[in-house]
Amino acid sequence: MKKIINNTSQVVEEMLEGIVCAYPHAIKRLPGTQVLVRANKPDHKVALVSGGGSGHEPSHGGFVGTGMLDGAVAGAVFTSPTPDQVYEAIKAVDNGSGVLLIIKNYTGDVLNFEMAADLAMMDGIEVEKIIVNDDVAVENSTWTTGRRGIAGTLFVHKIAGAKAEAGAPLSEVKRVAEKVIANVRSMGMALSACTVPEAGKPSFTLADDEMEIGLGIHGEPGTHREKIKEADAIVSDLLDKIFLDLSLQAQDEVAVLVNGLGATPLMELYIANRKVNEILTSKGIIPVKTLVGNYMTSIEMAGFSISLLKLDNELKGLLEAPANTPALVQY
Amino acid sequence: MKKIINNTSQVVEEMLEGIVCAYPHAIKRLPGTQVLVRANKPDHKVALVSGGGSGHEPSHGGFVGTGMLDGAVAGAVFTSPTPDQVYEAIKAVDNGSGVLLIIKNYTGDVLNFEMAADLAMMDGIEVEKIIVNDDVAVENSTWTTGRRGIAGTLFVHKIAGAKAEAGAPLSEVKRVAEKVIANVRSMGMALSACTVPEAGKPSFTLADDEMEIGLGIHGEPGTHREKIKEADAIVSDLLDKIFLDLSLQAQDEVAVLVNGLGATPLMELYIANRKVNEILTSKGIIPVKTLVGNYMTSIEMAGFSISLLKLDNELKGLLEAPANTPALVQY
Repeated sequence: MKKIINNTSQVVEEMLEGIVCAYPHAIKRLPGTQVLVRANKPDHKVALVSGGGSGHEPSHGGFVGTGMLDGAVAGAVFTSPTPDQVYEAIKAVDNGSGVLLIIKNYTGDVLNFEMAADLAMMDGIEVEKIIVNDDVAVENSTWTTGRRGIAGTLFVHKIAGAKAEAGAPLSEVKRVAEKVIANVRSMGMALSACTVPEAGKPSFTLADDEMEIGLGIHGEPGTHREKIKEADAIVSDLLDKIFLDLSLQAQDEVAVLVNGLGATPLMELYIANRKVNEILTSKGIIPVKTLVGNYMTSIEMAGFSISLLKLDNELKGLLEAPANTPALVQY
Repeated sequence: MKKIINNTSQVVEEMLEGIVCAYPHAIKRLPGTQVLVRANKPDHKVALVSGGGSGHEPSHGGFVGTGMLDGAVAGAVFTSPTPDQVYEAIKAVDNGSGVLLIIKNYTGDVLNFEMAADLAMMDGIEVEKIIVNDDVAVENSTWTTGRRGIAGTLFVHKIAGAKAEAGAPLSEVKRVAEKVIANVRSMGMALSACTVPEAGKPSFTLADDEMEIGLGIHGEPGTHREKIKEADAIVSDLLDKIFLDLSLQAQDEVAVLVNGLGATPLMELYIANRKVNEILTSKGIIPVKTLVGNYMTSIEMAGFSISLLKLDNELKGLLEAPANTPALVQY
């Protein structure tokens, strides 16, 4: 295992310290917890909390800030945060306007966030939750009943965050979040596995000429393995799977996320995006917003996913609203 | 070689197409060239042109935009751009206020940018150049007389870019660029090599328990190889080398860049930044701005570099000025 770390049991602790001291004007840590919140708590708005296992950086702490999340809870690597940590986050960010929990669909995450919500509601805090399940690869998986939540979650953070920032009530913030979930689909592939520090070795192996299609962001099995193809053929296969599930036609507007899994150079992500763009435009589909980079990673896995979000005017406006977080800034 | 590419000879072409279609509102490509320029050419300001071999993405095209570069020239992978390409960039971005060339110190880059400057000056365009040599690892190297230019170049783009955006004349933009160069130092390390697509295999190998210190961003040899240490010890070693060359004392303010080389997860970069911050603050040095991420990569090399820029009020103000580029946004 070649990693720039100290003690394997301290990676989450030290990572949290390292991100907070990089962006002290934007984020701070709740003392004694693995929760990151905005450095300056907003007065009057619905608060958004997300989180999950660590190892997906910049998700989720990197998206805490104006126009996106209010709090992010970091579990151990690839392990759901515990209910008490999520509960601390909810209490810290609520300002009386209520809290929306953005949960990726993994059994542990769903259970733990729900338990935290129950605790907070007993305190009189208004809490709603939405569950993201954008991954079209597999219907059920190792850690999931139903589809997994992966990189498309970024669009939920961005769009629900913009709605909350605009002062909308909790029911409205939840409504747009659910609209994003209904319209976002993702599909990924990997060239290599990643190594959880405490495990010390890769979670699986792929032959030198092999790739896995539909892999989850924790290395859960995908749909199949096959020989590596050219980038254009890979992109075409991933998009075909998405198109089966997301009805798109000429003149539809979409947002695109070409998301690196940690060890994939931007060069390759741009090459993939070229083909994504070519296929979309050949169908008359209009990519009005594109993000290319490492937004939801799987430690040092090599590979990428494509997410498409079908837009209407409401989603488009919220997607273009300003955001100021460590990992996504726009104005 | 496991890469998400098509034809190895087309990676630069397809990468340029992929970045332009991701950010069409920000950048465009000069037809028939490997030059990226701003989508909307400014009317009245000094123009900045940088560039170099490809494989360092998001450098340099990712930094074209408001507050940073006006043009970026992409050579073949790890190969200097040709003089004619740089010349095209200069002609395209000049609006009568003159052009500053930001060159990293590699023999080929310096020669080719200088030839282009000569051609442009014969056309009556005012051209100045500055040469970045922030890497303290080695005094001379494979492709360099004198120190190499590496990730600290980002601060030159940002600060000279802000000065130009503010309407300063060419002599003033050059002056602040040179002030950055005089005050920025970098030092890196690698856990693994990278593979140039047309070569098809890694440029060198490291044993499973080995790292190289002071490696260049093209895999040029560094100062030495040694057994992998803990992250804190690596950071301490890199900073010690920087401190030997950059005089810093308590109360000095610095900007920090913890730069990933392509395959290093953000988790590890944050862990490194934690120690950078701890060492600086233990000396009373104040990190007023920190960037952590992949800013100047070496394809899929695993490793990172640390850059420190000693600030004065002028540099600090320009560093904090707004920027809006594909790879760096602030407001």
